[in-house]
Amino acid sequence: MDISNLIQKNNTKIIFIILDGIGGLPINGKTELEMANKPNLDGLAKNSACGMHIPVGHGITPGSGPGHFGVFGYDPLKYEIGRGVLEALGLEIELKKTDVAIRCNYSTIRNGLIVDRRAGRISTEKNVELTERLSKKIKEIDGVKIILKPGKEHRFCLVMRFKDNILENEAMVKDTDPQKEGKPPLEPEPLNNESKKVANIAKKFIFKASEILKKEERANYVLLRGFSALPAIPSFEEKYGLKSCSIAVYPMYRGITKLLGMETLKVEGDIKEEVALLKEVYRDYDFIFVHVKKIDSFGEDGNFEGKVKKIEEFDMYLQEIISLNPDVLLITGDHSTPALLKAHSWHPVPLLLKSPFVLGGLSQAFTERECFKGEIGIIPATSIMPLVLANSLRLRKFGA
Amino acid sequence: MDISNLIQKNNTKIIFIILDGIGGLPINGKTELEMANKPNLDGLAKNSACGMHIPVGHGITPGSGPGHFGVFGYDPLKYEIGRGVLEALGLEIELKKTDVAIRCNYSTIRNGLIVDRRAGRISTEKNVELTERLSKKIKEIDGVKIILKPGKEHRFCLVMRFKDNILENEAMVKDTDPQKEGKPPLEPEPLNNESKKVANIAKKFIFKASEILKKEERANYVLLRGFSALPAIPSFEEKYGLKSCSIAVYPMYRGITKLLGMETLKVEGDIKEEVALLKEVYRDYDFIFVHVKKIDSFGEDGNFEGKVKKIEEFDMYLQEIISLNPDVLLITGDHSTPALLKAHSWHPVPLLLKSPFVLGGLSQAFTERECFKGEIGIIPATSIMPLVLANSLRLRKFGA
Repeated sequence: MDISNLIQKNNTKIIFIILDGIGGLPINGKTELEMANKPNLDGLAKNSACGMHIPVGHGITPGSGPGHFGVFGYDPLKYEIGRGVLEALGLEIELKKTDVAIRCNYSTIRNGLIVDRRAGRISTEKNVELTERLSKKIKEIDGVKIILKPGKEHRFCLVMRFKDNILENEAMVKDTDPQKEGKPPLEPEPLNNESKKVANIAKKFIFKASEILKKEERANYVLLRGFSALPAIPSFEEKYGLKSCSIAVYPMYRGITKLLGMETLKVEGDIKEEVALLKEVYRDYDFIFVHVKKIDSFGEDGNFEGKVKKIEEFDMYLQEIISLNPDVLLITGDHSTPALLKAHSWHPVPLLLKSPFVLGGLSQAFTERECFKGEIGIIPATSIMPLVLANSLRLRKFGA
Repeated sequence: MDISNLIQKNNTKIIFIILDGIGGLPINGKTELEMANKPNLDGLAKNSACGMHIPVGHGITPGSGPGHFGVFGYDPLKYEIGRGVLEALGLEIELKKTDVAIRCNYSTIRNGLIVDRRAGRISTEKNVELTERLSKKIKEIDGVKIILKPGKEHRFCLVMRFKDNILENEAMVKDTDPQKEGKPPLEPEPLNNESKKVANIAKKFIFKASEILKKEERANYVLLRGFSALPAIPSFEEKYGLKSCSIAVYPMYRGITKLLGMETLKVEGDIKEEVALLKEVYRDYDFIFVHVKKIDSFGEDGNFEGKVKKIEEFDMYLQEIISLNPDVLLITGDHSTPALLKAHSWHPVPLLLKSPFVLGGLSQAFTERECFKGEIGIIPATSIMPLVLANSLRLRKFGA
């Protein structure tokens, strides 16, 4: 059900912590959470409501976009973030409603065939140089502003900034990447009548760029993918009546929360600096989201021990967070990233909710196996926010 | 969500075992699974992901068709197998897309009223004789081929084979069985404009058959039920990209899997012969379905002890199956058949998934009560295939 109709405001405080990729799998019998020495998290779990959440669906491995949308209560199957938009957010481009964002690759073309889709993975320095050159020479096309930003190696981002707002269907243009080497690039084909304008500008951009790059040995062509506009999505404030902010070191997560209308606070460093900022701004918001990235990074690297250490590091700061005494403290992940798989995975994610209104006593530690025994059970990610709001007494009774 | 878009192929092997009717209920405190001495299954459960699945919905007792559709990931509420089709499959009629299948009964009519809907349950021998007689005299009607096959006692199957493909709505004709004795038979009434042709042929068939049978004392009339065509359904290969086969002793289960485009391997005997065939063909397929029937048969007979023994027999062959070392081994049932109820039932069905990517350690045995504690939780049957595919690393990440 849409709980927006049940929202009532009050002065409660919610701290919502995402330990990115927290869920794991056993290596030699123990998961990362089971191996970590984390007395504070385990103590908290004993007196909290615990459970597991399923980010998108059984067996579905979520990317970062769907993973976060789910825990914030936005159905990831209904609201999709386009790949171009996600790339732009990761590169800290401030997207507007008038924008179409596109992921681009430098690539190598010979006799009309793509012979290297990644232009031999040119250096990031070379990329910066080329992207600057393109930026100087292509400032606008047909009155539409062209914004380019280099990423890593062969990747860069193209944003078309129109004068008017762009609807999602106006950005629906086919990728030009043929996916296989030895084939000609595809046309930026419009997927409907409304997207012809964007397709046409893309065509002109490709033509201009290949003229400018034609003397390059490797990066002499560009491939365009993931054409997308900002999704039409209700803000966190509209949906839940919460004045909210996000604390995240990585730009992509600030970007995702910005899409939801949260205030995005910039912070350099890691957990220590994030917790310091949390304490600083705690009075100013109803809902503070804290994103801890590096747990996921170690998981992605297959570094079991590193992930364990990062969990232990977070545990050391937990007491500081608890001492702020929020009405609801929620700790979970956006998905699992078992070191065993070196990747995001489909596994349910441990979940802990501290509030004065829980049973407690069902889970003996904050681990996958203990959280399965908890009072929350196994729930879809989209059920987390209703529980958080209920526990902060922000939901009215339904019906008489 | 439709996971077809996330499918990626690889070389993993999946063995998918249905112990038909496996779930049970306690008699003197223990269920069939709890009573059975089955060290291999219990050992496997300890190191596997366990759970329970709900075949169709809470409280819904599934037939064999919906039970199997669910575990194969086809929503049983969306894809229905008509009763005529199911009957034909059980009688090993090779149905084509040009066919309409109908369950028929021999019955007794007097003065225009049905006085015995089952013709006094004539013997199967008598049925064979009568059906042969009808077959010889009615080879086609209005250019449509008529195929008849005797079943048990008073039951037989009629297939109308058209020249062109038949859509499901073209087969929608009302049953002629009045359901109560002492009433006249109903007309084979078309339920829409498209089904008039089939209704008309049915009418002529009934007329011709009653002419041929009019001197019979008991079986002097025929009642037609369950008019149906093959459902329009994506194949297993289209849906999941799996090269698959089924190993089943009973024709109906070969028929159901044939509907899904699996290769259906014929085998005589029981578990021993099925496992021997599994080993023989193991290299040739991505996905091998093994159907173990007799556990359900004992349940249907109310033979608790027989069902226990059959489970123990399966357990003896389990080690041979495990030693094939499939990437994913799934063991469950299509529904429960408690000996206590002597029938299919609505109860959730125990489920075991072995793969390198599970937690394990939450269930101590393969029983209903232990599987409820497992990491899979209580899931709809249609979530089984996404989990199987995820655990064989055949699903790509959703979103970026």
